[in-house]
Amino acid sequence: MRTVLKLGGSVLTHKSEPETVDEASLEQVCDTIAAFLDREAASLVIVHGGGSFGHHHAAACGLSTVAGTHDATAVTTVHRAMCALNDRVIDALQERGVSAVPVRPLSVAHRSERGLQFPAGALEAMLEEGFVPVTHGDVVVHERTGATVLSGDDIVVSLARSLKAERIGLCSTVPGVIDDDGEVVDAIDSYEAVAAVLGESEATDVTGGMAHKVRQLLALESPACIFDPASLELFLDTGRAGTVIDGRENTAH
Amino acid sequence: MRTVLKLGGSVLTHKSEPETVDEASLEQVCDTIAAFLDREAASLVIVHGGGSFGHHHAAACGLSTVAGTHDATAVTTVHRAMCALNDRVIDALQERGVSAVPVRPLSVAHRSERGLQFPAGALEAMLEEGFVPVTHGDVVVHERTGATVLSGDDIVVSLARSLKAERIGLCSTVPGVIDDDGEVVDAIDSYEAVAAVLGESEATDVTGGMAHKVRQLLALESPACIFDPASLELFLDTGRAGTVIDGRENTAH
Repeated sequence: MRTVLKLGGSVLTHKSEPETVDEASLEQVCDTIAAFLDREAASLVIVHGGGSFGHHHAAACGLSTVAGTHDATAVTTVHRAMCALNDRVIDALQERGVSAVPVRPLSVAHRSERGLQFPAGALEAMLEEGFVPVTHGDVVVHERTGATVLSGDDIVVSLARSLKAERIGLCSTVPGVIDDDGEVVDAIDSYEAVAAVLGESEATDVTGGMAHKVRQLLALESPACIFDPASLELFLDTGRAGTVIDGRENTAH
Repeated sequence: MRTVLKLGGSVLTHKSEPETVDEASLEQVCDTIAAFLDREAASLVIVHGGGSFGHHHAAACGLSTVAGTHDATAVTTVHRAMCALNDRVIDALQERGVSAVPVRPLSVAHRSERGLQFPAGALEAMLEEGFVPVTHGDVVVHERTGATVLSGDDIVVSLARSLKAERIGLCSTVPGVIDDDGEVVDAIDSYEAVAAVLGESEATDVTGGMAHKVRQLLALESPACIFDPASLELFLDTGRAGTVIDGRENTAH
């Protein structure tokens, strides 16, 4: 069973304080992952967000997913902050016996006119050899724009396709997609359902936010779940937790 | 003019002392590169060796280009040492105004039955955007072997082909290929010339050493030069320095 698991930056860091790891949360998440890999010889790719490591420096450098820079010092400032967080995640996993190895998007990915290019040959080889690749939101080269921010969510969508993941999980600090009454939505299977659940204004905001994320996940070939750390074990064991997003019956492929 | 330049680990570090940068040599080499890029808007890829950063840890972990490991901690130990040296090279170049950005082979390359796979899309995009990618010898995943050492020389050969480099330079602490009389050989254009110059026993040692390096370079589509730091400026300006290895007239392609 091949799984792509995203750990949100808000799960791993204290977002309000620059470069501060949420130690308790990191340890809890890594305990859960290590225990799962002890129970099951799964093929697991981990992607994590930037939290207070990436966003702080990206904002200071004026970088976003569309606003780029040709300043190599800005590129390495953001990149190294993300690598520092990644090193912490790798260490916490290795301390628990997980064969975690780092993958830096800046080294392998770029954005061209055709969109994100993220060759997954090295990742595929890592999985075949029993390693657990751990990659992250980063800054990547962007045609005619210098370098821009690549979000962890965009990496998840790309790798879910190229690695033919059977399970996709996004673990953040919210327990799922929340409807107007504050309840977790069990399942979303179409674009129409997104609008119905999130309300028209949020659903039409395609530049970001939950609606954009749900729409990207609906287009995948496998179900994706949005859940919080309390449901991580359930997701790893069953492939279903929080809100299950599965557009396979309602989306033309 | 697209150039792939290898900086030997022996140029950048004190090989006998673990993790010690040769500051004077690093500064001299970076001064020369920065001055060249001020004179000419060249497309330059830099590859560096491991010197006392990589070799020390690789040996301690029992790793070589053929002896692998499935131990993720060993992988990250060697990888991080190489990244630490790369960070120093990047910093020294950026301080001189060079738009240097890092490329980690572990993230992008692997060895399969078909040999080294090193997709160069991100590197190509970096060059197009005016960055100077700086990559390095590293540990990479190796089919059925876990992870093994990838030498800077093997990266040069791979990138020279995939990036269609017009100039290839290997800057080490020797001024070129040295013949039996201790003289620098001006040019080598065939396998036979290698044996004649280096003597039969060295020339048939295909597992490593100068003969192996020369044979790889003879098979490329562009001339390659082996020279020392004193000739780096000459190489960058003219594409010819030390020993010029050019097998295009004598090698079947």
